[in-house]
Amino acid sequence: MKATVYKGNKTFSVIEKEIEQPVKGEVRIKVAYSGVCGTDVHIYHGMMDKRVKMPLTIGHEMSGTIDAIGEGVTGYSMGDKVVVRPLDDRGVKPSDKGFNHICEDLKFIGIDSPGSMQQYWNVPAFTLHKLKSETDLKLAALVEPLSVAVHDVRMSGLQAGETAVVLGGGPIGLLVAMVAKEAGAQVIVSEVNEKRIAKAKELGLNAVNPTKLDLIEYVKEQTEGRRADVVFEVAGVQPALDVMTEVAGIRGRIVMVAIHGQKKEIDLFKFFWKELKLIGARVYEKEDYEKAITLVTANKLPFTQMITDVQPLSNIQKVFEGIDNNPDGMKVLMNCQL
Amino acid sequence: MKATVYKGNKTFSVIEKEIEQPVKGEVRIKVAYSGVCGTDVHIYHGMMDKRVKMPLTIGHEMSGTIDAIGEGVTGYSMGDKVVVRPLDDRGVKPSDKGFNHICEDLKFIGIDSPGSMQQYWNVPAFTLHKLKSETDLKLAALVEPLSVAVHDVRMSGLQAGETAVVLGGGPIGLLVAMVAKEAGAQVIVSEVNEKRIAKAKELGLNAVNPTKLDLIEYVKEQTEGRRADVVFEVAGVQPALDVMTEVAGIRGRIVMVAIHGQKKEIDLFKFFWKELKLIGARVYEKEDYEKAITLVTANKLPFTQMITDVQPLSNIQKVFEGIDNNPDGMKVLMNCQL
Ligand SMILES: NC(=O)c1ccc[n+]([C@@H]2O[C@H](COP(=O)([O-])OP(=O)(O)OC[C@H]3O[C@@H](n4cnc5c(N)ncnc54)[C@H](O)[C@@H]3O)[C@@H](O)[C@H]2O)c1
Ligand SMILES: NC(=O)c1ccc[n+]([C@@H]2O[C@H](COP(=O)([O-])OP(=O)(O)OC[C@H]3O[C@@H](n4cnc5c(N)ncnc54)[C@H](O)[C@@H]3O)[C@@H](O)[C@H]2O)c1
Ligand SMILES: [Zn+2]
Ligand SMILES: [Zn+2]
Repeated sequence: MKATVYKGNKTFSVIEKEIEQPVKGEVRIKVAYSGVCGTDVHIYHGMMDKRVKMPLTIGHEMSGTIDAIGEGVTGYSMGDKVVVRPLDDRGVKPSDKGFNHICEDLKFIGIDSPGSMQQYWNVPAFTLHKLKSETDLKLAALVEPLSVAVHDVRMSGLQAGETAVVLGGGPIGLLVAMVAKEAGAQVIVSEVNEKRIAKAKELGLNAVNPTKLDLIEYVKEQTEGRRADVVFEVAGVQPALDVMTEVAGIRGRIVMVAIHGQKKEIDLFKFFWKELKLIGARVYEKEDYEKAITLVTANKLPFTQMITDVQPLSNIQKVFEGIDNNPDGMKVLMNCQL
Repeated sequence: MKATVYKGNKTFSVIEKEIEQPVKGEVRIKVAYSGVCGTDVHIYHGMMDKRVKMPLTIGHEMSGTIDAIGEGVTGYSMGDKVVVRPLDDRGVKPSDKGFNHICEDLKFIGIDSPGSMQQYWNVPAFTLHKLKSETDLKLAALVEPLSVAVHDVRMSGLQAGETAVVLGGGPIGLLVAMVAKEAGAQVIVSEVNEKRIAKAKELGLNAVNPTKLDLIEYVKEQTEGRRADVVFEVAGVQPALDVMTEVAGIRGRIVMVAIHGQKKEIDLFKFFWKELKLIGARVYEKEDYEKAITLVTANKLPFTQMITDVQPLSNIQKVFEGIDNNPDGMKVLMNCQL
């Protein structure tokens, strides 16, 4: 079988190795597609070399079919279409209060242990979610990032008729916007990259450039002065943090999706003054995966347009170099059988 | 009648003036006690001279009795014991979404219009809450700050059996701690002033000094590693902001009670990582006042010990000078008939 490994120094290798039998409690998946996530690009850039045990097969956004079933695994048949929820929560403790998806000793599969950028992948059966036979395996590779978006929207408590401002129109931001719109909200995407604004519009979203108009005034106009009920911070930059407390209306909820490596300046006065809420959101829970699977299976949202490129897995080095040189692209999938 | 006015430059005057008839929709209150709030001290320090139209009678923590009833006011009789909820929300708009207590055009009575530091006070009847005939008027002067605490605890969603850490053991922090404890929580107060720690202990609270022990380790020990379910930031300083995201456990809720005039550094990564919530909380709603009135009327909590001094209103200048020189004191009341 073919596998890829990250070796540090912005380098992947494609290697040949033996197909392994799944051990007790595991299944072997024939990986169909594996999407490239911002985190994978971070790894490629060497930003996570302390955490990643090289050489490592990375990848955690995927779809595939059951190829072998280990001892003790029930409920799955050969050929079943599946996706993996890449959270290894076996270290969960009572102090995690039942929030397994963010437990203190969580291991992220594809970062802390081998991932999906290989032809066959052995995973614990508890990570599996079954797809319908009709689910498109390309779209199913979006289930992982889509589940992030579903989780974020759920955590926000967004109601139909409310207004949501999404700061940042990258892959996660646009999926959040799609899910929020599907939930019946008026959605405004704020994005500085014109190509990504164009992509957002292609997806049927209302997207504006905060460097070309006054976002605060725009949001006020669109809401008869109420401002946003919900704000999603999915840009990860200080200007987004500065504007989030302004575009949020009274009792607005701000969901912190972006990962901020350093402490950042926040206008706490506005939190007090308007009784704002800041809601941290990380990955997803089981129900978010199920909702995302339902959405891609129904295929009523423009998921297909989110996939801007599909490449053979054997091109992995070129794929990562290409993403690096093209901040406009959205989701790149790799066909793991090629 | 006797009234006091703030004239700027750290100066109050005691003046004689005519008793006024209440106009339509108003009542006249014979003010019993008026408490000194941190905001009043801010005004005295000249920090709010832009907002305060001098000379102004300040004061918004009070108790009293109905002394005259204006046209159209029903439901009150002469001599009824009352407190005022000092929020003038007559400028409320649809964009305030029904959150009248924090509406954009809210006027705070006692800051934006004359307050309670006078012998007789005319106020709109919609600001009144009736007390029981048995309610102690000294304790009733605590209803306003106690309502802040009741609101904060309600906004946190605190449940019996949870652990709450209160950062800052000033008047508001200690009231929050008392209300949280009364709600069935395990409460830990963190305070740097040893006199205030002693006061907290006198009130039956568990209080520690974060400069003398490792607060994070202490909270972990007290919770078998769970850390706090709820954190109240009532100190208003950077060290409290730094520690709040550490002492909060998974899905912890942090209530921002303190008023931060400048942007401050926050560890947003922890919000993401532990799915923390930050909840801005400002003043109180009607139901918080009713709860606070019930609490002071029942008088089962050590409210009396919160009152560290009672002075004649005519001593106002000395009272403010004294508070300035004594950061250890807790709540000072002024007897508005003396
Ligand atoms: N919470 C989670 O579990 C989770 C999961 C996945 C990703 N993330 C985080 O979500 C964030 C977004 O992920 P992504 O893959 O979409 O990243 P991305 O970098 O592709 O998207 C960020 C977008 O923000 C835009 N932007 C930059 N400055 C802006 C500004 N001032 N106003 C508006 N937009 C601006 C950029 O042009 C870019 O398109 C990242 O911080 C990522 O780490 C979080
Ligand atoms: N949200 C609202 O509606 C509302 C209402 C009233 C007051 N407030 C605000 O609440 C805050 C507290 O009010 P207060 O009257 O009790 O003020 P205060 O200044 O008397 O109390 C703050 C306490 O924090 C302590 N402190 C300082 N550094 C600390 C640290 N590192 N760790 C722990 N404690 C520390 C101080 O010693 C002091 O006792 C203020 O910011 C005030 O403006 C808000
Ligand atoms: Zn990812
Ligand atoms: Zn006050």
